[in-house]
Amino acid sequence: MINAGMSFLGFLLCLNIIPKFKPMFIEAKLFGIDMSKTSKQKVPEALGVVCGAVFLIILFLFIPIPFYKHLSTGTEKFPYHEYVEYLAALLSICCMVFLGFADDVLDLRWRHKLLLPTISSLPLLMVYFVNFNSTTIIVPQPLRGLLGYDLNLGCLYYVYMGMLAVFCTNAINILAGVNGLEVGQSWVIGCSVLIFNFIELSGEQRDAHMFSSYFIMPFISVTSALLYYNWYPSQVFVGDTFCYFSGMTFAVVAILGHFSKTMLLFFIPQILNFIYSVPQLFRFVPCPRHRLPRFNAKTEKLELSTTKFKYKELSIIGKLLINIYRLVGCIKILDNNEEFMECNNFTLINLAIRYLGPLHERTLVSILLIFQIFCSIIAFTIRYQLALLFYEKLS
Amino acid sequence: MINAGMSFLGFLLCLNIIPKFKPMFIEAKLFGIDMSKTSKQKVPEALGVVCGAVFLIILFLFIPIPFYKHLSTGTEKFPYHEYVEYLAALLSICCMVFLGFADDVLDLRWRHKLLLPTISSLPLLMVYFVNFNSTTIIVPQPLRGLLGYDLNLGCLYYVYMGMLAVFCTNAINILAGVNGLEVGQSWVIGCSVLIFNFIELSGEQRDAHMFSSYFIMPFISVTSALLYYNWYPSQVFVGDTFCYFSGMTFAVVAILGHFSKTMLLFFIPQILNFIYSVPQLFRFVPCPRHRLPRFNAKTEKLELSTTKFKYKELSIIGKLLINIYRLVGCIKILDNNEEFMECNNFTLINLAIRYLGPLHERTLVSILLIFQIFCSIIAFTIRYQLALLFYEKLS
Repeated sequence: MINAGMSFLGFLLCLNIIPKFKPMFIEAKLFGIDMSKTSKQKVPEALGVVCGAVFLIILFLFIPIPFYKHLSTGTEKFPYHEYVEYLAALLSICCMVFLGFADDVLDLRWRHKLLLPTISSLPLLMVYFVNFNSTTIIVPQPLRGLLGYDLNLGCLYYVYMGMLAVFCTNAINILAGVNGLEVGQSWVIGCSVLIFNFIELSGEQRDAHMFSSYFIMPFISVTSALLYYNWYPSQVFVGDTFCYFSGMTFAVVAILGHFSKTMLLFFIPQILNFIYSVPQLFRFVPCPRHRLPRFNAKTEKLELSTTKFKYKELSIIGKLLINIYRLVGCIKILDNNEEFMECNNFTLINLAIRYLGPLHERTLVSILLIFQIFCSIIAFTIRYQLALLFYEKLS
Repeated sequence: MINAGMSFLGFLLCLNIIPKFKPMFIEAKLFGIDMSKTSKQKVPEALGVVCGAVFLIILFLFIPIPFYKHLSTGTEKFPYHEYVEYLAALLSICCMVFLGFADDVLDLRWRHKLLLPTISSLPLLMVYFVNFNSTTIIVPQPLRGLLGYDLNLGCLYYVYMGMLAVFCTNAINILAGVNGLEVGQSWVIGCSVLIFNFIELSGEQRDAHMFSSYFIMPFISVTSALLYYNWYPSQVFVGDTFCYFSGMTFAVVAILGHFSKTMLLFFIPQILNFIYSVPQLFRFVPCPRHRLPRFNAKTEKLELSTTKFKYKELSIIGKLLINIYRLVGCIKILDNNEEFMECNNFTLINLAIRYLGPLHERTLVSILLIFQIFCSIIAFTIRYQLALLFYEKLS
């Protein structure tokens, strides 16, 4: 309850200070021009850092509350293992907000973007190791003949968790490019996690889900305020800072709340986008600097953005992937002559336009967010219905 | 030993990457023009953030080492109270590096600069409360008749520790303005703390000083690399980021190592500078935007920088302070006519010039650093000799 109250105050604070910070960001040359608008005014960039800071302040001030009972009755039985989780979570998130902001300001290289989240999650993994060190997973029934009832992944499980942090931060970052999409999807995922936490509060893992909700409630509140300003037409951009911040928050609660598999279910659209993007991300197909849809100033609608390349010069894998995508029908080839081949960029946003035709930006983002909500419903169905088929008891 | 080795690697890493980051900072409009040079080239600003990041990486990777014994023999007796200290310390430092960088990029307001360090130190204070909660100080012998043998400061002690963090971060920040001074003084203080830790390693508080040295060794190493580039003529500026980072590191080790009084002894030059600056800091006397000494392009020496104001318009306190300073002889009044009064800005740097005459920048910073070393020697004398007069046993 106190957390909810503080989160609400955080929401009001964010709503109040974001406009005040706008001139400071423009002064600092942190701004962008919205490529999907006719007016070419400066939109402050990286406002996600304000949200991240407010989020951290809320949680810093909230620290004593869950431990109040122990503090007032004496420190003998102070729950160190819980406090350590709390601090490690904050440390990882704080590092990522810092890293994201540095990325926005300095334009870091790709190797930093992969290396630093991994290092940031080290304290978290150490806490996991000390507090639980359970790296055993229950094998789904159909595979038990092959692998036995349970399987100890050992070290691999830590690699998996480390990669979860890298995946969450980057997955949100690459499903972006239209007003409100980064924040909107994070908001939907956040709400899904909170609902899941509330459902599970009555279960065995009560403490873990209580812990998760302490982080998710302030997250939703600051995200709501940011969404208000980032919604079409955007008054502010959120920057990599926000993607890193939200991605790490999800990774943290998933790891310490022991529901990393369920968390991945909430990331279905991001996973689809990632898989669809693979040919461009790994440069099998040339990838332009920006892949966001192309703005048509006459119709004020967004159209497919494309990449142009010489088919002959692609690697074998590149040719293979292009042909598979063509076969499945998930790319549109606009031009294919002797010289050049031109097809849409491989993003979920372009895929939506490919099937639905040119769309107004607000319509497009609404459709994508409805898809995100739809996937969350599927995620809940899988989690609570389908899981019964594979596991006799929810794990 | 491992820590020393990792610190050395960190030193090499910093030495290697700082030049590589320079163009990125200039690209991001993070640069300044050195006001004390004839050439007006762009010097990248806020490179302290690279140091801070390397420092954090070293300590993240170092985390498992001190706990290795416990990890390998089973987690039953894992020293949670030590791990919690470690994490809280990192969290506070990480927050400050982030805040400092945000300050460099966005130019934060004064209220943020005072409020945010206080909030950053909350996790630290909470750890102190849980692990020690000793707010009792031993009263020096001459005062014992008045106050008794010991005195429980209770809540006040926490306020004192919170203010220590604010003081350390800002004290280094206001003794700045010539090439290499911020980094140089931090380096001297860091080395003094390390020597103190080594001396005390044989004492009762072994663990606390071991803990402190884990943080100070990487700190000295990254600072050395930064000093190499920041020394006259500066190739990089360190920015507020560095001052916040170093101030918080000192505050953290002082609080968790229980030697906050000794730490203040190492801050004697900063305290003198702060006291001397009070009339301008609290605006009893007008304070220009920059108080660094004035560069004379002909002689290539630094001269007094001044503030000009109407004596009649000063508040009573302002007039009083000016007259006290005049009486003591620690200000130079350059002009005092009916209309205006002009005197030097109240900084230790100007005070040095006032007594020694115009100096070359390299000479000036060397003198100030020698003074810092001299004060450290005094600090050790007070700590180990004078303390015996007031306390029968070192506390």
